[in-house]
Amino acid sequence: MADSLSEIRERVNQFVAERDWAQFHTPKNLAMAMIVEAAELVELFQWDTPNESQRLDEVKLEAVRHELADTFVYLLRIAEVLDIDLIAAVNDKVTLNVLKYPAEKVRGSNAKYTHYLEE
Amino acid sequence: MADSLSEIRERVNQFVAERDWAQFHTPKNLAMAMIVEAAELVELFQWDTPNESQRLDEVKLEAVRHELADTFVYLLRIAEVLDIDLIAAVNDKVTLNVLKYPAEKVRGSNAKYTHYLEE
Amino acid sequence: MADSLSEIRERVNQFVAERDWAQFHTPKNLAMAMIVEAAELVELFQWDTPNESQRLDEVKLEAVRHELADTFVYLLRIAEVLDIDLIAAVNDKVTLNVLKYPAEKVRGSNAKYTHYLEE
Amino acid sequence: MADSLSEIRERVNQFVAERDWAQFHTPKNLAMAMIVEAAELVELFQWDTPNESQRLDEVKLEAVRHELADTFVYLLRIAEVLDIDLIAAVNDKVTLNVLKYPAEKVRGSNAKYTHYLEE
Repeated sequence: MADSLSEIRERVNQFVAERDWAQFHTPKNLAMAMIVEAAELVELFQWDTPNESQRLDEVKLEAVRHELADTFVYLLRIAEVLDIDLIAAVNDKVTLNVLKYPAEKVRGSNAKYTHYLEE
Repeated sequence: MADSLSEIRERVNQFVAERDWAQFHTPKNLAMAMIVEAAELVELFQWDTPNESQRLDEVKLEAVRHELADTFVYLLRIAEVLDIDLIAAVNDKVTLNVLKYPAEKVRGSNAKYTHYLEE
Repeated sequence: MADSLSEIRERVNQFVAERDWAQFHTPKNLAMAMIVEAAELVELFQWDTPNESQRLDEVKLEAVRHELADTFVYLLRIAEVLDIDLIAAVNDKVTLNVLKYPAEKVRGSNAKYTHYLEE
Repeated sequence: MADSLSEIRERVNQFVAERDWAQFHTPKNLAMAMIVEAAELVELFQWDTPNESQRLDEVKLEAVRHELADTFVYLLRIAEVLDIDLIAAVNDKVTLNVLKYPAEKVRGSNAKYTHYLEE
Protein backbone atom coordinates (compact mmCIF):
# COMPACT_ATOMS: atom_id res chain seq x y z
CA MET A 1 0.00 0.00 0.00
CA ALA A 2 1.10 3.53 -0.68
CA ASP A 3 2.11 5.36 2.48
CA SER A 4 3.21 8.81 1.32
CA LEU A 5 1.72 11.59 -0.78
CA SER A 6 3.92 10.81 -3.79
CA GLU A 7 3.15 7.09 -3.58
CA ILE A 8 -0.60 7.68 -3.37
CA ARG A 9 -0.37 10.04 -6.33
CA GLU A 10 1.47 7.34 -8.25
CA ARG A 11 -1.11 4.71 -7.33
CA VAL A 12 -3.93 6.96 -8.58
CA ASN A 13 -2.05 7.70 -11.81
CA GLN A 14 -1.64 3.97 -12.44
CA PHE A 15 -5.35 3.35 -11.82
CA VAL A 16 -6.19 6.02 -14.41
CA ALA A 17 -3.61 4.77 -16.94
CA GLU A 18 -4.85 1.17 -16.75
CA ARG A 19 -8.34 2.39 -17.72
CA ASP A 20 -7.13 4.82 -20.41
CA TRP A 21 -9.00 7.60 -18.66
CA ALA A 22 -6.29 10.27 -18.90
CA GLN A 23 -7.92 11.42 -22.15
CA PHE A 24 -10.87 12.73 -20.10
CA HIS A 25 -8.69 14.33 -17.45
CA THR A 26 -8.34 17.89 -18.67
CA PRO A 27 -8.12 20.47 -15.86
CA LYS A 28 -11.62 21.73 -16.80
CA ASN A 29 -13.17 18.27 -16.48
CA LEU A 30 -11.22 17.39 -13.34
CA ALA A 31 -12.29 20.64 -11.64
CA MET A 32 -15.90 19.65 -12.36
CA ALA A 33 -15.34 16.13 -11.03
CA MET A 34 -13.68 17.49 -7.88
CA ILE A 35 -16.52 19.88 -7.06
CA VAL A 36 -19.04 17.06 -7.58
CA GLU A 37 -17.22 14.99 -4.93
CA ALA A 38 -16.95 18.03 -2.63
CA ALA A 39 -20.74 18.42 -2.98
CA GLU A 40 -21.28 14.78 -1.99
CA LEU A 41 -19.48 15.66 1.23
CA VAL A 42 -21.61 18.80 1.68
CA GLU A 43 -24.72 16.65 1.20
CA LEU A 44 -23.78 14.50 4.19
CA PHE A 45 -23.86 17.60 6.42
CA GLN A 46 -26.60 19.72 4.84
CA TRP A 47 -29.34 19.13 7.42
CA ASP A 48 -27.00 18.61 10.40
CA THR A 49 -26.43 21.32 12.95
CA PRO A 50 -22.74 22.27 13.17
CA ASN A 51 -22.61 20.30 16.46
CA GLU A 52 -24.19 17.21 14.93
CA SER A 53 -21.58 17.30 12.16
CA GLN A 54 -18.93 16.79 14.86
CA ARG A 55 -20.55 13.71 16.38
CA LEU A 56 -20.81 11.20 13.56
CA ASP A 57 -21.78 7.59 14.00
CA GLU A 58 -19.58 4.93 12.42
CA VAL A 59 -21.62 4.59 9.23
CA LYS A 60 -21.66 8.32 8.53
CA LEU A 61 -17.97 8.75 9.38
CA GLU A 62 -17.18 6.03 6.83
CA ALA A 63 -19.29 7.84 4.21
CA VAL A 64 -17.43 11.10 4.96
CA ARG A 65 -14.12 9.27 4.69
CA HIS A 66 -15.06 7.98 1.22
CA GLU A 67 -16.20 11.37 -0.09
CA LEU A 68 -13.09 13.05 1.30
CA ALA A 69 -10.96 10.40 -0.44
CA ASP A 70 -12.83 10.97 -3.75
CA THR A 71 -12.27 14.72 -3.51
CA PHE A 72 -8.60 14.15 -2.71
CA VAL A 73 -8.17 11.79 -5.68
CA TYR A 74 -9.35 14.48 -8.13
CA LEU A 75 -7.26 17.12 -6.36
CA LEU A 76 -4.21 14.87 -6.85
CA ARG A 77 -5.12 14.40 -10.52
CA ILE A 78 -5.37 18.17 -11.12
CA ALA A 79 -1.97 18.62 -9.48
CA GLU A 80 -0.63 15.80 -11.68
CA VAL A 81 -1.87 17.06 -15.06
CA LEU A 82 -0.72 20.62 -14.32
CA ASP A 83 2.56 19.52 -12.70
CA ILE A 84 1.83 21.32 -9.43
CA ASP A 85 3.76 20.41 -6.26
CA LEU A 86 0.94 20.34 -3.69
CA ILE A 87 3.15 20.57 -0.61
CA ALA A 88 4.98 23.61 -2.01
CA ALA A 89 1.66 25.18 -3.09
CA VAL A 90 0.22 24.87 0.44
CA ASN A 91 3.44 26.14 2.00
CA ASP A 92 3.37 29.21 -0.26
CA LYS A 93 -0.32 29.83 0.49
CA VAL A 94 0.12 29.51 4.27
CA THR A 95 3.05 31.93 4.12
CA LEU A 96 0.82 34.43 2.25
CA ASN A 97 -2.03 33.92 4.72
CA VAL A 98 0.24 34.55 7.69
CA LEU A 99 0.83 38.04 6.28
CA LYS A 100 -2.76 38.55 5.15
CA TYR A 101 -4.35 37.48 8.45
CA PRO A 102 -2.03 38.68 11.27
CA ALA A 103 -2.84 36.57 14.35
CA GLU A 104 -3.13 39.54 16.68
CA LYS A 105 -5.69 41.27 14.42
CA VAL A 106 -7.97 38.39 13.48
CA ARG A 107 -7.86 36.23 16.61
CA GLY A 108 -11.23 34.63 17.28
CA SER A 109 -12.91 36.37 14.34
CA ASN A 110 -13.74 35.08 10.90
CA ALA A 111 -14.36 38.51 9.44
CA LYS A 112 -12.88 38.62 5.97
CA TYR A 113 -9.51 40.21 5.18
CA THR A 114 -11.16 43.23 3.54
CA HIS A 115 -13.16 43.97 6.68
CA TYR A 116 -10.34 44.54 9.11
CA LEU A 117 -8.23 46.08 6.38
CA GLU A 118 -10.64 48.99 6.32
CA GLU A 119 -10.05 49.83 9.97
CA MET B 1 9.16 24.61 5.39
CA ALA B 2 6.99 21.54 5.71
CA ASP B 3 7.90 18.86 3.20
CA SER B 4 5.55 15.98 3.93
CA LEU B 5 1.79 15.54 4.26
CA SER B 6 1.92 15.25 8.07
CA GLU B 7 4.16 18.31 8.34
CA ILE B 8 1.92 20.41 6.12
CA ARG B 9 -1.10 19.29 8.15
CA GLU B 10 0.72 20.35 11.31
CA ARG B 11 1.64 23.74 9.83
CA VAL B 12 -2.01 24.38 8.87
CA ASN B 13 -3.17 23.34 12.36
CA GLN B 14 -0.75 25.79 13.93
CA PHE B 15 -1.94 28.61 11.66
CA VAL B 16 -5.53 27.92 12.76
CA ALA B 17 -4.63 27.61 16.47
CA GLU B 18 -2.72 30.92 16.50
CA ARG B 19 -5.88 32.65 15.23
CA ASP B 20 -8.28 30.77 17.52
CA TRP B 21 -10.26 29.73 14.46
CA ALA B 22 -10.79 26.07 15.44
CA GLN B 23 -14.10 27.12 17.03
CA PHE B 24 -15.47 27.76 13.50
CA HIS B 25 -14.07 24.55 12.06
CA THR B 26 -16.94 22.12 12.44
CA PRO B 27 -17.13 19.53 9.63
CA LYS B 28 -20.28 21.26 8.32
CA ASN B 29 -18.59 24.66 8.07
CA LEU B 30 -15.36 23.21 6.66
CA ALA B 31 -17.26 21.30 3.97
CA MET B 32 -18.84 24.61 2.93
CA ALA B 33 -15.46 26.36 2.92
CA MET B 34 -13.91 23.56 0.87
CA ILE B 35 -16.60 23.66 -1.82
CA VAL B 36 -16.26 27.44 -2.03
CA GLU B 37 -12.56 27.03 -2.82
CA ALA B 38 -13.28 24.22 -5.28
CA ALA B 39 -15.71 26.61 -7.01
CA GLU B 40 -13.02 29.28 -7.29
CA LEU B 41 -11.02 26.69 -9.22
CA VAL B 42 -14.04 25.86 -11.40
CA GLU B 43 -14.45 29.58 -12.12
CA LEU B 44 -10.96 29.76 -13.62
CA PHE B 45 -11.96 27.14 -16.22
CA GLN B 46 -15.66 27.88 -16.80
CA TRP B 47 -15.36 29.58 -20.19
CA ASP B 48 -12.26 27.66 -21.34
CA THR B 49 -12.51 24.81 -23.78
CA PRO B 50 -11.10 21.58 -22.29
CA ASN B 51 -8.02 22.12 -24.49
CA GLU B 52 -7.51 25.69 -23.33
CA SER B 53 -7.62 24.48 -19.73
CA GLN B 54 -4.51 22.40 -20.48
CA ARG B 55 -2.48 25.30 -21.86
CA LEU B 56 -2.36 27.88 -19.07
CA ASP B 57 -0.18 30.97 -19.10
CA GLU B 58 1.97 31.67 -16.05
CA VAL B 59 -0.52 34.03 -14.38
CA LYS B 60 -3.42 31.61 -14.69
CA LEU B 61 -1.34 28.61 -13.60
CA GLU B 62 -0.38 30.54 -10.45
CA ALA B 63 -4.07 31.32 -9.80
CA VAL B 64 -4.92 27.61 -10.21
CA ARG B 65 -2.09 26.69 -7.86
CA HIS B 66 -3.49 29.01 -5.18
CA GLU B 67 -7.07 27.74 -5.45
CA LEU B 68 -5.87 24.14 -5.39
CA ALA B 69 -3.85 24.93 -2.25
CA ASP B 70 -6.89 26.56 -0.62
CA THR B 71 -9.04 23.52 -1.39
CA PHE B 72 -6.33 21.23 -0.03
CA VAL B 73 -6.01 23.26 3.20
CA TYR B 74 -9.72 22.76 3.99
CA LEU B 75 -9.52 19.10 2.99
CA LEU B 76 -6.64 18.69 5.47
CA ARG B 77 -8.68 20.47 8.15
CA ILE B 78 -11.69 18.17 7.65
CA ALA B 79 -9.38 15.16 7.94
CA GLU B 80 -7.90 16.71 11.10
CA VAL B 81 -11.12 17.46 12.96
CA LEU B 82 -12.57 14.02 12.13
CA ASP B 83 -9.28 12.19 12.72
CA ILE B 84 -9.22 10.68 9.23
CA ASP B 85 -5.97 9.28 7.80
CA LEU B 86 -6.07 10.65 4.24
CA ILE B 87 -3.50 8.28 2.77
CA ALA B 88 -5.34 5.25 4.19
CA ALA B 89 -8.69 6.65 3.01
CA VAL B 90 -7.43 7.05 -0.57
CA ASN B 91 -5.80 3.61 -0.50
CA ASP B 92 -9.09 2.05 0.62
CA LYS B 93 -11.06 3.95 -2.04
CA VAL B 94 -8.67 3.02 -4.86
CA THR B 95 -8.87 -0.63 -3.78
CA LEU B 96 -12.69 -0.42 -3.96
CA ASN B 97 -12.57 1.33 -7.34
CA VAL B 98 -10.29 -1.35 -8.78
CA LEU B 99 -13.10 -3.84 -8.11
CA LYS B 100 -15.90 -1.48 -9.14
CA TYR B 101 -14.30 -0.43 -12.42
CA PRO B 102 -12.48 -3.48 -13.85
CA ALA B 103 -9.89 -2.18 -16.32
CA GLU B 104 -10.88 -4.58 -19.08
CA LYS B 105 -14.55 -3.51 -18.92
CA VAL B 106 -14.25 0.27 -18.67
CA ARG B 107 -11.10 0.95 -20.71
CA GLY B 108 -11.43 4.21 -22.61
CA SER B 109 -14.99 4.82 -21.44
CA ASN B 110 -16.31 7.08 -18.72
CA ALA B 111 -19.74 5.48 -18.60
CA LYS B 112 -20.80 5.16 -15.01
CA TYR B 113 -20.53 1.96 -13.00
CA THR B 114 -24.30 1.40 -13.15
CA HIS B 115 -24.29 1.56 -16.94
CA TYR B 116 -21.97 -1.32 -17.71
CA LEU B 117 -23.27 -3.22 -14.70
CA GLU B 118 -26.57 -3.58 -16.50
CA GLU B 119 -25.01 -5.31 -19.48
CA MET C 1 -38.90 46.24 -16.21
CA ALA C 2 -39.69 42.60 -16.67
CA ASP C 3 -42.32 41.37 -14.22
CA SER C 4 -42.84 37.70 -15.10
CA LEU C 5 -40.63 34.64 -15.49
CA SER C 6 -40.87 34.68 -19.30
CA GLU C 7 -40.12 38.41 -19.45
CA ILE C 8 -37.08 38.09 -17.17
CA ARG C 9 -35.84 35.18 -19.28
CA GLU C 10 -36.23 37.34 -22.37
CA ARG C 11 -34.38 40.26 -20.77
CA VAL C 12 -31.47 37.97 -19.85
CA ASN C 13 -31.39 36.52 -23.38
CA GLN C 14 -31.19 40.03 -24.84
CA PHE C 15 -28.35 40.96 -22.47
CA VAL C 16 -26.42 37.90 -23.66
CA ALA C 17 -27.20 38.48 -27.36
CA GLU C 18 -26.04 42.11 -27.25
CA ARG C 19 -22.64 40.91 -25.96
CA ASP C 20 -22.37 37.95 -28.34
CA TRP C 21 -21.88 35.69 -25.36
CA ALA C 22 -24.20 32.86 -26.48
CA GLN C 23 -21.16 31.19 -28.08
CA PHE C 24 -19.80 30.47 -24.58
CA HIS C 25 -23.15 29.29 -23.22
CA THR C 26 -23.00 25.55 -23.72
CA PRO C 27 -24.81 23.56 -21.01
CA LYS C 28 -21.44 22.36 -19.70
CA ASN C 29 -20.08 25.88 -19.29
CA LEU C 30 -23.35 27.24 -17.88
CA ALA C 31 -23.52 24.45 -15.29
CA MET C 32 -20.03 25.49 -14.17
CA ALA C 33 -21.02 29.17 -14.05
CA MET C 34 -24.16 28.34 -12.06
CA ILE C 35 -22.31 26.33 -9.42
CA VAL C 36 -19.75 29.13 -9.06
CA GLU C 37 -22.57 31.56 -8.24
CA ALA C 38 -24.19 29.03 -5.89
CA ALA C 39 -20.82 28.80 -4.11
CA GLU C 40 -20.67 32.58 -3.70
CA LEU C 41 -23.96 32.25 -1.82
CA VAL C 42 -22.56 29.38 0.27
CA GLU C 43 -19.54 31.56 1.11
CA LEU C 44 -21.81 34.20 2.67
CA PHE C 45 -23.09 31.61 5.16
CA GLN C 46 -20.06 29.37 5.70
CA TRP C 47 -19.08 30.61 9.18
CA ASP C 48 -22.60 31.56 10.29
CA THR C 49 -24.57 29.38 12.64
CA PRO C 50 -27.88 28.29 11.06
CA ASN C 51 -29.60 30.86 13.31
CA GLU C 52 -27.29 33.69 12.28
CA SER C 53 -28.05 32.89 8.63
CA GLN C 54 -31.69 33.77 9.36
CA ARG C 55 -30.96 37.17 10.88
CA LEU C 56 -29.09 39.10 8.19
CA ASP C 57 -28.30 42.78 8.36
CA GLU C 58 -29.17 44.95 5.36
CA VAL C 59 -25.73 44.78 3.75
CA LYS C 60 -25.54 40.99 3.91
CA LEU C 61 -29.15 40.53 2.76
CA GLU C 62 -28.32 42.64 -0.30
CA ALA C 63 -25.25 40.48 -0.99
CA VAL C 64 -27.39 37.33 -0.71
CA ARG C 65 -29.96 38.88 -3.06
CA HIS C 66 -27.26 39.51 -5.68
CA GLU C 67 -25.78 36.00 -5.49
CA LEU C 68 -29.25 34.45 -5.65
CA ALA C 69 -30.00 36.59 -8.74
CA ASP C 70 -26.71 35.50 -10.37
CA THR C 71 -27.51 31.84 -9.73
CA PHE C 72 -31.00 32.33 -11.13
CA VAL C 73 -29.68 34.05 -14.28
CA TYR C 74 -27.54 31.01 -15.15
CA LEU C 75 -30.38 28.65 -14.27
CA LEU C 76 -32.59 30.57 -16.73
CA ARG C 77 -29.86 30.36 -19.37
CA ILE C 78 -29.53 26.57 -19.00
CA ALA C 79 -33.31 26.26 -19.37
CA GLU C 80 -33.11 28.51 -22.43
CA VAL C 81 -30.35 26.70 -24.32
CA LEU C 82 -31.91 23.28 -23.63
CA ASP C 83 -35.49 24.49 -24.25
CA ILE C 84 -36.70 23.41 -20.80
CA ASP C 85 -39.95 24.80 -19.38
CA LEU C 86 -38.92 25.53 -15.78
CA ILE C 87 -42.44 25.79 -14.35
CA ALA C 88 -43.41 22.45 -15.90
CA ALA C 89 -40.12 20.88 -14.73
CA VAL C 90 -40.73 21.94 -11.12
CA ASN C 91 -44.37 20.83 -11.28
CA ASP C 92 -43.27 17.39 -12.50
CA LYS C 93 -40.59 17.14 -9.82
CA VAL C 94 -42.93 18.17 -6.98
CA THR C 95 -45.47 15.60 -8.19
CA LEU C 96 -42.76 12.93 -8.08
CA ASN C 97 -41.60 14.06 -4.63
CA VAL C 98 -45.14 13.89 -3.25
CA LEU C 99 -45.08 10.16 -4.05
CA LYS C 100 -41.47 9.65 -2.99
CA TYR C 101 -41.82 11.43 0.36
CA PRO C 102 -45.32 10.67 1.72
CA ALA C 103 -46.14 13.38 4.27
CA GLU C 104 -47.30 10.94 6.93
CA LYS C 105 -44.04 8.96 6.74
CA VAL C 106 -41.45 11.72 6.62
CA ARG C 107 -43.08 14.44 8.72
CA GLY C 108 -40.46 16.32 10.74
CA SER C 109 -37.61 14.13 9.53
CA ASN C 110 -35.01 14.78 6.89
CA ALA C 111 -33.91 11.18 6.62
CA LYS C 112 -33.37 10.33 3.00
CA TYR C 113 -35.86 8.43 0.86
CA THR C 114 -33.74 5.27 0.93
CA HIS C 115 -33.70 5.24 4.71
CA TYR C 116 -37.41 4.99 5.38
CA LEU C 117 -37.90 2.86 2.29
CA GLU C 118 -35.95 0.12 3.99
CA GLU C 119 -38.33 -0.04 6.95
CA MET D 1 -50.90 22.66 -11.80
CA ALA D 2 -49.08 25.86 -10.98
CA ASP D 3 -48.38 27.95 -14.07
CA SER D 4 -46.60 31.04 -12.77
CA LEU D 5 -43.56 31.75 -10.59
CA SER D 6 -45.68 32.75 -7.59
CA GLU D 7 -47.89 29.69 -7.94
CA ILE D 8 -44.93 27.32 -8.18
CA ARG D 9 -43.37 28.98 -5.13
CA GLU D 10 -46.63 28.45 -3.27
CA ARG D 11 -46.83 24.81 -4.32
CA VAL D 12 -43.29 24.20 -3.06
CA ASN D 13 -44.07 25.97 0.23
CA GLN D 14 -47.10 23.74 0.73
CA PHE D 15 -45.03 20.61 0.02
CA VAL D 16 -42.56 21.69 2.70
CA ALA D 17 -45.26 22.67 5.22
CA GLU D 18 -47.08 19.35 4.88
CA ARG D 19 -43.83 17.56 5.85
CA ASP D 20 -42.90 19.99 8.64
CA TRP D 21 -39.56 20.54 6.94
CA ALA D 22 -39.41 24.33 7.34
CA GLN D 23 -37.51 23.80 10.60
CA PHE D 24 -34.52 22.55 8.55
CA HIS D 25 -34.77 25.34 5.98
CA THR D 26 -32.39 27.95 7.34
CA PRO D 27 -30.60 29.96 4.63
CA LYS D 28 -27.34 28.20 5.55
CA ASN D 29 -28.83 24.72 5.10
CA LEU D 30 -30.73 25.68 1.95
CA ALA D 31 -27.60 27.14 0.35
CA MET D 32 -25.90 23.78 0.98
CA ALA D 33 -28.85 21.87 -0.47
CA MET D 34 -28.91 24.12 -3.53
CA ILE D 35 -25.22 23.67 -4.32
CA VAL D 36 -25.61 19.89 -3.93
CA GLU D 37 -28.32 19.93 -6.62
CA ALA D 38 -26.24 22.24 -8.81
CA ALA D 39 -23.40 19.70 -8.50
CA GLU D 40 -25.69 16.89 -9.64
CA LEU D 41 -26.21 18.92 -12.80
CA VAL D 42 -22.45 19.48 -13.16
CA GLU D 43 -21.94 15.71 -12.81
CA LEU D 44 -24.12 15.06 -15.86
CA PHE D 45 -21.75 17.17 -17.99
CA GLN D 46 -18.36 16.53 -16.37
CA TRP D 47 -16.92 14.20 -19.01
CA ASP D 48 -18.82 15.69 -21.97
CA THR D 49 -17.16 18.02 -24.41
CA PRO D 50 -18.96 21.39 -24.55
CA ASN D 51 -20.44 20.27 -27.89
CA GLU D 52 -21.69 16.97 -26.49
CA SER D 53 -23.42 18.86 -23.69
CA GLN D 54 -25.55 20.57 -26.36
CA ARG D 55 -26.69 17.35 -28.01
CA LEU D 56 -28.43 15.36 -25.28
CA ASP D 57 -30.42 12.21 -25.87
CA GLU D 58 -33.90 11.98 -24.35
CA VAL D 59 -32.81 10.14 -21.21
CA LYS D 60 -30.05 12.61 -20.38
CA LEU D 61 -32.22 15.65 -21.16
CA GLU D 62 -34.79 14.32 -18.69
CA ALA D 63 -32.07 13.89 -16.05
CA VAL D 64 -30.91 17.47 -16.66
CA ARG D 65 -34.50 18.68 -16.39
CA HIS D 66 -34.87 17.01 -12.98
CA GLU D 67 -31.62 18.40 -11.56
CA LEU D 68 -32.46 21.88 -12.85
CA ALA D 69 -35.88 21.61 -11.17
CA ASP D 70 -34.25 20.49 -7.89
CA THR D 71 -31.85 23.43 -7.98
CA PHE D 72 -34.75 25.79 -8.74
CA VAL D 73 -36.83 24.42 -5.85
CA TYR D 74 -34.08 25.27 -3.33
CA LEU D 75 -33.52 28.65 -4.97
CA LEU D 76 -37.25 29.38 -4.52
CA ARG D 77 -37.04 28.27 -0.87
CA ILE D 78 -34.09 30.59 -0.14
CA ALA D 79 -36.03 33.47 -1.72
CA GLU D 80 -39.04 32.49 0.41
CA VAL D 81 -37.33 32.29 3.79
CA LEU D 82 -35.46 35.58 3.21
CA ASP D 83 -38.47 37.30 1.61
CA ILE D 84 -36.60 38.09 -1.61
CA ASP D 85 -38.52 39.01 -4.78
CA LEU D 86 -36.63 36.98 -7.39
CA ILE D 87 -37.90 38.87 -10.44
CA ALA D 88 -36.93 42.22 -8.89
CA ALA D 89 -33.55 40.80 -7.82
CA VAL D 90 -32.74 39.65 -11.36
CA ASN D 91 -33.96 42.94 -12.84
CA ASP D 92 -31.67 44.87 -10.47
CA LYS D 93 -28.72 42.60 -11.26
CA VAL D 94 -29.20 42.83 -15.03
CA THR D 95 -29.40 46.61 -14.76
CA LEU D 96 -26.09 46.60 -12.84
CA ASN D 97 -24.49 44.24 -15.35
CA VAL D 98 -25.51 46.44 -18.28
CA LEU D 99 -23.34 49.19 -16.73
CA LYS D 100 -20.56 46.84 -15.61
CA TYR D 101 -20.23 45.07 -18.98
CA PRO D 102 -20.86 47.67 -21.71
CA ALA D 103 -21.83 45.77 -24.89
CA GLU D 104 -19.40 47.65 -27.10
CA LYS D 105 -16.43 46.85 -24.84
CA VAL D 106 -17.04 43.18 -24.04
CA ARG D 107 -18.65 41.92 -27.24
CA GLY D 108 -17.53 38.36 -27.99
CA SER D 109 -15.19 38.22 -25.01
CA ASN D 110 -15.63 36.63 -21.61
CA ALA D 111 -12.72 38.47 -20.02
CA LYS D 112 -13.73 39.50 -16.54
CA TYR D 113 -14.84 43.04 -15.62
CA THR D 114 -11.56 43.78 -13.86
CA HIS D 115 -9.55 42.93 -16.96
CA TYR D 116 -10.97 45.49 -19.36
CA LEU D 117 -11.40 47.99 -16.52
CA GLU D 118 -7.64 48.20 -16.33
CA GLU D 119 -7.28 49.31 -19.92
